[in-house]
Amino acid sequence: MASNPFFESELFNELNDALRHSSRFTATYRIAADDYAEAKKIARGIAVEQTVECPDELFVNTWIEDSVIGQIEDLKKADPGSYYAIISYSPDTVEGEMTELMNMLFGNTSLQPGIRLMSFELPDSMYRHYPGPKFGRQGIRELCGIEKGPILMSALKPLGRSAKDFGETAYKLALGGCPLIKDDHSLFNQSYAPFKDRVKACVDSVNNANAKTGGRSLYIANCTADSMEFLERAMTAQELGAGGIMAAPGLLGLSIIRELSSAPDFHLPIFLHPCFSGPLVLSADSGISPFCCYGQFSRLAGADAAIFTSFGGRFPFTEEVCRKICDGTETEMGGLRSIFPVPSGGMKWQLFKKMVQVYGPDAIFLVGGALLTESDDLTANMHFYFEKLNEAVNK
Amino acid sequence: MASNPFFESELFNELNDALRHSSRFTATYRIAADDYAEAKKIARGIAVEQTVECPDELFVNTWIEDSVIGQIEDLKKADPGSYYAIISYSPDTVEGEMTELMNMLFGNTSLQPGIRLMSFELPDSMYRHYPGPKFGRQGIRELCGIEKGPILMSALKPLGRSAKDFGETAYKLALGGCPLIKDDHSLFNQSYAPFKDRVKACVDSVNNANAKTGGRSLYIANCTADSMEFLERAMTAQELGAGGIMAAPGLLGLSIIRELSSAPDFHLPIFLHPCFSGPLVLSADSGISPFCCYGQFSRLAGADAAIFTSFGGRFPFTEEVCRKICDGTETEMGGLRSIFPVPSGGMKWQLFKKMVQVYGPDAIFLVGGALLTESDDLTANMHFYFEKLNEAVNK
Repeated sequence: MASNPFFESELFNELNDALRHSSRFTATYRIAADDYAEAKKIARGIAVEQTVECPDELFVNTWIEDSVIGQIEDLKKADPGSYYAIISYSPDTVEGEMTELMNMLFGNTSLQPGIRLMSFELPDSMYRHYPGPKFGRQGIRELCGIEKGPILMSALKPLGRSAKDFGETAYKLALGGCPLIKDDHSLFNQSYAPFKDRVKACVDSVNNANAKTGGRSLYIANCTADSMEFLERAMTAQELGAGGIMAAPGLLGLSIIRELSSAPDFHLPIFLHPCFSGPLVLSADSGISPFCCYGQFSRLAGADAAIFTSFGGRFPFTEEVCRKICDGTETEMGGLRSIFPVPSGGMKWQLFKKMVQVYGPDAIFLVGGALLTESDDLTANMHFYFEKLNEAVNK
Repeated sequence: MASNPFFESELFNELNDALRHSSRFTATYRIAADDYAEAKKIARGIAVEQTVECPDELFVNTWIEDSVIGQIEDLKKADPGSYYAIISYSPDTVEGEMTELMNMLFGNTSLQPGIRLMSFELPDSMYRHYPGPKFGRQGIRELCGIEKGPILMSALKPLGRSAKDFGETAYKLALGGCPLIKDDHSLFNQSYAPFKDRVKACVDSVNNANAKTGGRSLYIANCTADSMEFLERAMTAQELGAGGIMAAPGLLGLSIIRELSSAPDFHLPIFLHPCFSGPLVLSADSGISPFCCYGQFSRLAGADAAIFTSFGGRFPFTEEVCRKICDGTETEMGGLRSIFPVPSGGMKWQLFKKMVQVYGPDAIFLVGGALLTESDDLTANMHFYFEKLNEAVNK
């Protein structure tokens, strides 16, 4: 399962210190290889495949060889049977296009077993194309008025209930002080609870509860939808008064997330959901490291929080993988804001002590089903969950 | 490597015969499990996770239990240690939204190791949301004037050359009769060869060559770009006279492909490129079968041809996997047109005999580097490759 000592390695520290100041951008790949010579051959293959994608005859002894083609910057042994290769690319090859940046980092190479994209580093100059998260951790804390410690989040479910029902649930959760209340990721625009009706019912409910409590609960509307309709729903959610939006880049691609995040007339935090992204991260020797996928890419696209499946629930990530995702949400990236890691997927209060140990104070704990079913009284459940979270934090 | 006997199984035939006529849509998953009881538990977990995603208390004894939640339609032993589960879902849960359909088929379950999406079946009623390929195999044959047999395609490369250079290469290939000439997938809008300049140079060159030869070579412009810019480039390519466009759904998501394909004012065939899709298909026990990913999903989105990495080149797909991709491009899907499989990735004339055996007459053989470097005379290379293809077909 998706874990190895890369992030503790000297190599990673070197990256952090040196490569960031290069004028080129770099990708670090974990390569399965029996010896150095094989690893070098594979690394050279990546450098060619990712850029010129053709036989030597077409570029050797031209200027393309010196500037366009990827360059092996470093190649070091990792664990037995694997090496880390750092390959650098020219910013000119991708300019400001995020799809081309992702393509250059891993496009065709993603089709090769035994090669895993571990991380990337951009020179500061490239970040002018990536303004990054508008809110990040601090911005979300300000919006929901919680200065420190883990933040509780819950979810409206199940699919099949009416907009009115979701509104009632949202009301009770907000009355109990739930800081963040999000739609289940399967709530789109079904006739059971059409998008606008659902968002309006939940916004009104949360506003009413906030007026009673003096609190600042936020409703996060799932806006994942087909292509441009996603942007429309996000703007509609904003107009209707939602406190944030959720989207699934596994279904939508990442560049449309950047488009929304960068829009001057959009002013809500963006929560990313991991649905459909499993294959990208599940294999230990191919795909993308969760550090890079949920941490680095989410921030590059300008999301403010990345939901992922935590250890201890229904999904397979280990504690170590989850720690690395957190690292990815805050590692230095051209001055971009840190974003919130949002562990989820079968969370419950019994996990809180361990979650506090692993995630520390800067995380959003997403508890859906367990919180909703603790008793019939949702508002009381919120109080109970706050109590348990306080116990875990102050133990 | 991504291969198993599912597609030869009785179960698959049953699917083809029976489930298509159901009013619900179905997904077939391969589940790693030691025995029937474990497989059943996992299948039930999928049915719940993909729909209501919550504990039983929130839906049991409500109408949601009968209509919204996924239903296990069949569960059969596959090879030792694995089972096939067919789970059906209500069309109301996704309505016309392609992202929600994909989410329902595999959203959160994609995050579980040991579960692979093998195929899906929609009732005919759902296809009203999916007009499918505008051209398909027959339409592409008509556009390039080739009535039968494998069609040759080549690629403009490498990144770093100028628009003028690409135009010259396109001219020589078209003069040699190359039916389909596409951009490398790394050609976006770099200053080396800006999008409009490149498309214009290549369109003009191919038109000039066609005027000389009386042929109908088509230039296929890579239009992959960030979010909505993709749609703009595709329309620009059409205005400038391109013969088709290429796009990478691994980067863009599939729903924007459907949006373009369904647009009443867009009239070019769409070629999909597999870059960044590797992790979706590479693992044998998780992710998505290549049959489903490159075959079924491509057609559902309305693409006319699906490029994939063939056996025999630089990538790992076996002959069997490649055969199944072809099956996916033509299996019955609500009357949607068959699309062209486009094997690629290190193809060369020495592979043609085997490729003809495996792919038969209805395929596009994409040969990039090998054709460009056979000799310095590209037009002569085309003649040589036609000769070799004819030999392979008529052997």
